[in-house]
Amino acid sequence: MSLEPGKQLLGGPLAVVHLGLDNLIDGARAAGAPVHVVDFVPPARGDRALAACLRSLLMPPLAAAIDAANQAALERILASQPHLVGVGVARDVVPGMAADLFLHAGPPITWDRMAGPLRGAVVGGLLLEGRAGTPAEAEGLAASGAVRFEPCHHHAAVGPMAGLITPSMPVWILEDRGPDGVGRRTFCTLNEGLGNVLRYGAYGDEVLTRLRFIADTLAPLLARTLERRGPIDLKSLVGQALQMGDEGHNRNRAATSLLFRELAPALVSAGPGVDVVRALDFIHRNDHFFLNLSMPMAKCMLLAAEGQPRSSLVTVMARNGTDFGIQLASTPGRWFVGPAQPVKGLYFPGFTERDAGLDLGDSAITETAGLGACAMAAAPAIVQFVGGSAEDALATTREMGRITVGRNPAFAVPALGFAGTPTGIDVRRVLELNLLPVINTGIAHREPGVGQVGAGLTHPPWECFAAALRALGESCNDMARSNPGPRL
Amino acid sequence: MSLEPGKQLLGGPLAVVHLGLDNLIDGARAAGAPVHVVDFVPPARGDRALAACLRSLLMPPLAAAIDAANQAALERILASQPHLVGVGVARDVVPGMAADLFLHAGPPITWDRMAGPLRGAVVGGLLLEGRAGTPAEAEGLAASGAVRFEPCHHHAAVGPMAGLITPSMPVWILEDRGPDGVGRRTFCTLNEGLGNVLRYGAYGDEVLTRLRFIADTLAPLLARTLERRGPIDLKSLVGQALQMGDEGHNRNRAATSLLFRELAPALVSAGPGVDVVRALDFIHRNDHFFLNLSMPMAKCMLLAAEGQPRSSLVTVMARNGTDFGIQLASTPGRWFVGPAQPVKGLYFPGFTERDAGLDLGDSAITETAGLGACAMAAAPAIVQFVGGSAEDALATTREMGRITVGRNPAFAVPALGFAGTPTGIDVRRVLELNLLPVINTGIAHREPGVGQVGAGLTHPPWECFAAALRALGESCNDMARSNPGPRL
Repeated sequence: MSLEPGKQLLGGPLAVVHLGLDNLIDGARAAGAPVHVVDFVPPARGDRALAACLRSLLMPPLAAAIDAANQAALERILASQPHLVGVGVARDVVPGMAADLFLHAGPPITWDRMAGPLRGAVVGGLLLEGRAGTPAEAEGLAASGAVRFEPCHHHAAVGPMAGLITPSMPVWILEDRGPDGVGRRTFCTLNEGLGNVLRYGAYGDEVLTRLRFIADTLAPLLARTLERRGPIDLKSLVGQALQMGDEGHNRNRAATSLLFRELAPALVSAGPGVDVVRALDFIHRNDHFFLNLSMPMAKCMLLAAEGQPRSSLVTVMARNGTDFGIQLASTPGRWFVGPAQPVKGLYFPGFTERDAGLDLGDSAITETAGLGACAMAAAPAIVQFVGGSAEDALATTREMGRITVGRNPAFAVPALGFAGTPTGIDVRRVLELNLLPVINTGIAHREPGVGQVGAGLTHPPWECFAAALRALGESCNDMARSNPGPRL
Repeated sequence: MSLEPGKQLLGGPLAVVHLGLDNLIDGARAAGAPVHVVDFVPPARGDRALAACLRSLLMPPLAAAIDAANQAALERILASQPHLVGVGVARDVVPGMAADLFLHAGPPITWDRMAGPLRGAVVGGLLLEGRAGTPAEAEGLAASGAVRFEPCHHHAAVGPMAGLITPSMPVWILEDRGPDGVGRRTFCTLNEGLGNVLRYGAYGDEVLTRLRFIADTLAPLLARTLERRGPIDLKSLVGQALQMGDEGHNRNRAATSLLFRELAPALVSAGPGVDVVRALDFIHRNDHFFLNLSMPMAKCMLLAAEGQPRSSLVTVMARNGTDFGIQLASTPGRWFVGPAQPVKGLYFPGFTERDAGLDLGDSAITETAGLGACAMAAAPAIVQFVGGSAEDALATTREMGRITVGRNPAFAVPALGFAGTPTGIDVRRVLELNLLPVINTGIAHREPGVGQVGAGLTHPPWECFAAALRALGESCNDMARSNPGPRL
């Protein structure tokens, strides 16, 4: 529990509030005094070298320079104006995409280390691309090195769960229309819906048939729709959705509904009628349809902050099902990695924790941009999906406020007096308070070919933040040594 | 303020908590003691005869019989399952509708006593029906008795603000598909949108042109759409909308979005294309489109409770801009009337309280059914529209819980741990606690022909509830005298 000043913990003539090793207080216990033990962990979990590094980054002369860098990075995030501008095919529009390249969620990983759900998605991708005729053939091909694997994040793209993007897949195209956003584009596949889907590692006929419908019918229709309609301001749409019970990660019903309203009139004119009905029906049946826009919107905002020297702001949090990686605004492209964690949550009937794969997907980009768990106070109904109570939802947003550098006024939370969501995770605060970001997420089955088994909450591994802080400490202290001039 | 047991009001050696006439405490004030005056009003506002009547209804032998009657009435409300089944023309489908009949909001009223906005709507209705060529001619006709006026509520219909239903207007048709709902149908016009609209008393060309588009294009298309699609379960849809920031009266963005999703696929097939695009665009541009379904849904639920002997449950609250009328479940069709009240709220730029008409419309049927102000805790963002804070929204729902007999589990509020909205206003509790229902509402300009000037909160007049209680007291005490048998 947390101890608040002035809070009366216990009544009675003698009461002990103890902070430290538990057995030191046995004497008081034996004397019959009520003992309240405060769960305390020293900054940086007591790692002395790391704590010294942390101190150097939280005190003069570096603290002010890092704070200023973070403020500049945050301002660029807030100034970003991601718009949905079109739909294209990955090999044509995603920068650096190639015929032998598969993109995946999280930090870099090789086939031999891939978790079940990601392997399943790769198998499905090879079947979809017509490069293998059977799952066994696909596995052999993947293991042979005939396909290259790279993170989506290396290509301004993001993908939920397995996050697989193969060359023939259609992708949403987003563009930053903010004052400083010229040329900044991000990408994500179209959401497949619920049930057996590639992103959770399923690759049956049903999965491939649906992916072909998306590529052959839905995506071209949506491309024509957006040409007719013009760009859609996603930040404004998400701002509205946060007033309608979404948090932009695991609850997307409002944003999906608002997007549906925005698209439908132009979609009808982009006909033919039979495709229009099928497309509207497909979108209508999937309350998570907007997730694949919420994610590249978040990525677009965070790209704006990249390359800010000395900034301790986290710009990427992503998982491949084996590793969890983060990046900092000051060192774009450099991964700090730790082991992917299990997810605590609610399971679909017939499944338990034993079926669960580890934390997976690029979707934690939403938390990185102030959505998801950071916006949970906007979405009390989410607790039906991930567990907990409505009070927990408020508490989570407040807690994220302790490790972030500011708030995003475009994402106002009515239940918190219209305060913006906490935005911009500061790796220093995470280690100082030993408070890891919360992540709302789905849970994939640990084996390839199965699919989603539940949803819940998790944390990144502490190791990512420790490694990031060490790297920041080295570069900042190097800078301070090489340029000891006026203190910023 | 309300005094809670065990709450410490003031510290210090001497403190006075005073309940009663203010000047009695001047001595303590002069002595320098801190004085906290509790704002106390005796039950039934100190009206001795009414208080005696109230006591008789809150004590044996009547209390238990009334409680049981209210529980039975509430159960019928909760069992009701209003579905949207079609669209028709008022003269063809509304029971008792006639060529010379105009329906209006609130209790019965004659032309000479009608408020400006209702007069404006009547003028517009006569122009729309082609019975007058100019506003002046229409006013003469209305005054001449050539048109009969009756409340919507006398015809199982409801109308927002002026609530005008003329014979040629299209109406939504709702049907109760609950186990006990056979044959129960309710009706409401299609929402016109914002700006200059008939329901706020405007009658210019723009208003009439829009009404003709609704009658000639939108309504027939929606009728065909519903024939193709089949009935829509409105209670389930509103239940979802309450998890998305709606309260079902002054905020309908979520329900409108969900309805849009439900309608669009079938609407496209009901073509022709040019009308489909126009219809989708019309609905998309009006976040209040669903209000005209929320209201007849509420009416449908409350009709189920009508005719329950001894029940003190309120089944109608409605205003015509001059009078406010309520009805009880035990005496269907009998109005208890008091003066319509001013509305406290936020005004559109260029308007102030001086422009405002009094409280108007049948839309308080939503509060009567546990929506609107009763559901405000579900819609913290509503405070941007009606004033106040997010905490006020929670407090309002909690307060309504003090004067209602139960909760509707179909309308769960995430922020209150998924408790249902307080449902079924008990006229006894209103008078016992001197706590009038809160009503969320729009504000019409006081003059005919202008339109909406703001939105806010109001209360019914106390007189309605006093009159209803007296009537209930008479009939219950009569029953008790004529049948003094076993106490229920």
